Amino acid sequence: MRIARFSLDGNVAFGVVEGAELDIIKGHPFGEFERSGQKVPLDKIRLLPPVLPNKVVAIGRNYVEHAEELGHTVPDVPVVFFEPSTSVAGPGDPVHYPAFSSEVHHEAELAVVIGRMCKEVPRERAREVILGYTCANDITARDIQRAESQWARAKGFDTSCPLGPWVETELDPADLAIQCTVNGEQRQLGRTSEMVRSIEDLIVHITEAMTLLPGDVILTGTPAGVGPLDGGDEVAVTIEGIGTLTNKVIKRD
Amino acid sequence: MRIARFSLDGNVAFGVVEGAELDIIKGHPFGEFERSGQKVPLDKIRLLPPVLPNKVVAIGRNYVEHAEELGHTVPDVPVVFFEPSTSVAGPGDPVHYPAFSSEVHHEAELAVVIGRMCKEVPRERAREVILGYTCANDITARDIQRAESQWARAKGFDTSCPLGPWVETELDPADLAIQCTVNGEQRQLGRTSEMVRSIEDLIVHITEAMTLLPGDVILTGTPAGVGPLDGGDEVAVTIEGIGTLTNKVIKRD
Repeated sequence: MRIARFSLDGNVAFGVVEGAELDIIKGHPFGEFERSGQKVPLDKIRLLPPVLPNKVVAIGRNYVEHAEELGHTVPDVPVVFFEPSTSVAGPGDPVHYPAFSSEVHHEAELAVVIGRMCKEVPRERAREVILGYTCANDITARDIQRAESQWARAKGFDTSCPLGPWVETELDPADLAIQCTVNGEQRQLGRTSEMVRSIEDLIVHITEAMTLLPGDVILTGTPAGVGPLDGGDEVAVTIEGIGTLTNKVIKRD
Repeated sequence: MRIARFSLDGNVAFGVVEGAELDIIKGHPFGEFERSGQKVPLDKIRLLPPVLPNKVVAIGRNYVEHAEELGHTVPDVPVVFFEPSTSVAGPGDPVHYPAFSSEVHHEAELAVVIGRMCKEVPRERAREVILGYTCANDITARDIQRAESQWARAKGFDTSCPLGPWVETELDPADLAIQCTVNGEQRQLGRTSEMVRSIEDLIVHITEAMTLLPGDVILTGTPAGVGPLDGGDEVAVTIEGIGTLTNKVIKRD
């Protein structure tokens, strides 16, 4: 099932995507809900970020070839960092090229959407806390990332975390193609099976320290092929079985 | 004015602290409000974290002597990192010693509470976005901080960010004594005038990248004297003109 969050005539709601239509949900996707049978065409609505995360917990260097392309090795323990709710953008939203950087990169990632409040999750129960999966672009000011030891500004600036287009709830994430194109040209192509740490291991590692809340998002790292974006570029992340998240980069003069 | 958030008989509200009493507020401290004249004694209520931040933006190595005591120099640009809302605790709340660490340190800090939504704040207007100031303890799993390049787990675990006891709105933060005691014994003592970067400079630097929201908190760094906490310890942060934030450390067997 594909759950989208959308706005129509100024109202915000959730719906289940079926082909070119959306069946509006009664209730909330994190609790009890049912389809209303009231359908709207996808081309009449505006898709929003499919969730409003309280926090985004991101993982660095989780694909060997990507770690190597930036001159790093895979660390002994996962690299864990936060992106704030103010960094989240939706499908089709502009990504604002930040004025303090001159080297902004795309990073296509599989995003895990948490469905229930959880802490100290045992590995064998990790799948139970997942609502579903969506596409993410962990947009990074690479020059700032090199210059500053902590990545809050490099990876946490406004609109640096597009999410969407919807949450796919029935999907085996073990071996999905993940791709990034810029203006239609392929830049990144990998498979989720290349992740160094599995989604289950990441949930165990993160919740050892902190509570995850419904709607929180885990970004699982990016495959090789990251590269620069510029004003006017259209960047698209496509994940097999989910769909495509497209954003246009806007640069101020 | 000292604005506290509290619970009484299961209800949560804000009030203005006056001596040993609290005058309940009508409205919200981030908008229009007035005192109701309805007073309750402080010893009848439970103080809560004075704000529920969407994000906590913290600054590392902002006091020279503290940077040196950990073997670092003061970096050319401020070290900026996030702590999530799930790390916030209130005055009197337990701090849970995390099972994944064996070296947990106190870090007394002046916390700046943001009063209005803001982005790209010019230096001369930085004071306008501040609602007030409170005490913070940026509790840190020092062994994890050394082992992991990004500090999300080391500084973002549940209850690692006690805030309180209230927000003082009329205070010049330029030169305040800041102290940390453990079981009544002084561990840290500094003055906010020793900060490498001023509060105004930090607001400019942070909002260059990201929007701050009402209730967001900036932690401004800790003076020298950080050291270990253990189960059963009572740790207290006192800032001149604000008050004292006290928490007890709870360690599981």
